[in-house]
Parts: sequence; C-alpha cells; structure tokens
Amino acid sequence: MAVFFYGCVTLDGYLAAADHSLDWLYETGDASETGYDEFYSGMDVTLMGRRTFRELERAGDPAAVYPATENYVFTHEALSCPGFTAVSMDPVELVRSLGPARNIWVVGGNTILAPLLEGDLVDHLIVQVAPVLLGAGVPLFTQGEALRRFRLEEVRRYGQFAELVYSRPR
Amino acid sequence: MAVFFYGCVTLDGYLAAADHSLDWLYETGDASETGYDEFYSGMDVTLMGRRTFRELERAGDPAAVYPATENYVFTHEALSCPGFTAVSMDPVELVRSLGPARNIWVVGGNTILAPLLEGDLVDHLIVQVAPVLLGAGVPLFTQGEALRRFRLEEVRRYGQFAELVYSRPR
Repeated sequence: MAVFFYGCVTLDGYLAAADHSLDWLYETGDASETGYDEFYSGMDVTLMGRRTFRELERAGDPAAVYPATENYVFTHEALSCPGFTAVSMDPVELVRSLGPARNIWVVGGNTILAPLLEGDLVDHLIVQVAPVLLGAGVPLFTQGEALRRFRLEEVRRYGQFAELVYSRPR
Repeated sequence: MAVFFYGCVTLDGYLAAADHSLDWLYETGDASETGYDEFYSGMDVTLMGRRTFRELERAGDPAAVYPATENYVFTHEALSCPGFTAVSMDPVELVRSLGPARNIWVVGGNTILAPLLEGDLVDHLIVQVAPVLLGAGVPLFTQGEALRRFRLEEVRRYGQFAELVYSRPR
C-alpha cells in the first residue's frame, strides 16, 4: 500500500484561490503536458473532501473524471454518483481500513492531507508548482508543527509547471 | 537594474522555523553544491531585514559573508559593521533610489520581499526548495492577495534541493 499526494499548487503554496477558483491553473497550461495519465493508471483508490467533489460536480461528471478508481468523499451528506462513496470516518482510519496492496491518491484537499501527514502515512508527494502567486487562498499544507523530512527523487519540467517528486524515507 | 530573490524555502513555504532556526536547512546538504558563487558574483547590492542581519552576526562576521556587495539593513538601530548600512526607509523607496544598472539581491526576509512584490519590482525569483515540511515558521510569501504570474525559466536539481528559476514577464 502507498499513499500519494499528486496535484498542482501555486509557488506560494495554494491549492485554490480564496473563492476556490482554479482560474490561475487553467491559464497556466494543459494538463495533458504532464505525466497524469501514467500516474492515474497506477491508482486504485481516490480520497477527496466534500468541496473538491462539489467542484468536480460543477465542472461535469465526476465518474467520467475518475472512472477506474474506487472514490471516497469525506462528507456527512449523501452522494448519488456511481463509483463514489460517502465516508464520515477519519482519513487515517479509512486509509488503514483499505488494507494493503492498494495505491491511494489524496486528490484534495488540505483537511485530508494534514491528518495523513501527521500520521506519517503519506509515502509520495508529487507536486506541480505553477508559476503564480496568489497571496491568499486554500493552502496545500496545514499539518501541525513538526519537522518532516522527505527525499527528493526527481525534478521534472512540464511547460510552465515544475514537478517535484518526493518519497518518505524508510 | 534587476531585483532578485534568491534563497531556500521548505516545501511548505517557510524561510525559517518558528524559533527562526535554520537547522532543517543545514541538515539538508551543502550550499557549495548550488550555483550560489556564480549568483553572488553578479550582485551589486544586498537588502535584508534586522532579523536576518542579527542571525548573520550570531553566526560570525557579516562582512565576510557578503564582502563584494553594498549591504543595506532595514532597521532603526545603529550598525557598526563595515560594508553594512542601516536604512529606515521603505524597501520600494530604497530600490528606486539605488538607480539603474544595479543588481539587487533580497536576502530576506518576507517583510522586505512582500512590498517589492506588491510594487511589481521583483524581476527574478530563484528558490531552492528543501525536502522538508515544518508546519509552522516564517513564511517566504506574505504579499497581499493578487494574482501575480511569473515565467518558469529553468528547473535544476542540486542534491536534495530543487531549484526553480522564475522571471517577471515584461
């Protein structure tokens, strides 16, 4: 089992603007320039927050975006979307319950990533840094104060994105 | 004239830990692995805050660290260090007063970088990302809310540091 964060962030560390818009991201370039397809084809499970799921719904059909994975949404609301399951347990508890031999992608947001980082459960961080400053927004990293060291595995460039690939030292 | 930020930051965007320590940085690797000497040889002026200067003093002789540049410290206190001048004006005002044909390095910290970013005066951002999360500390970016787009020029790797090189689009 391995837990991945894979996603875009601004140079000043935001996942989204203060109004949750991703316009800065869409204007930076095309996701097809990145290794996304290869990454996604290796995943078994996605985890996301209610807000990330609602953004997916607003943009179209969530099941078409994540067709090959089991998808869990942390929410107390009911969902009616094939392939997506509402869960209300703690992200750490869910990850432990999924058992071994699963590749789990933390799609977003920070409220799911933070407890997994605090539980030392994040094995890989794959971050595409966009050449943009926002000055305010939804931060990627909101885990508690503690020095956590990763290992830089690779630095790649996809157009205007710098991709940084990290693993948790064992 | 060009204004540069050049410096290390954690993956979660901190210049220093909450207690201002840089232990996480010293443990990541050797600065001699980077292009620092070449960068510094192109600079005419450094700008830094009082806290950065006091850290330099604590570590040894500031004049030995920045021997070839005119060095300005934003402080209301008097300084007695050759090559270092205390200034109490606004960073934007100082940068404008230095005149053309000078390369200015913003050594730190965020209280100097933020007004220069807000004034659209930062031409180059050269950031070495350390493979470390701190969860709290002194953030690099504290400028006000506004979308500011840079251009990714280069992505380099120096040991465990990923260096991202940006320029301001003209």
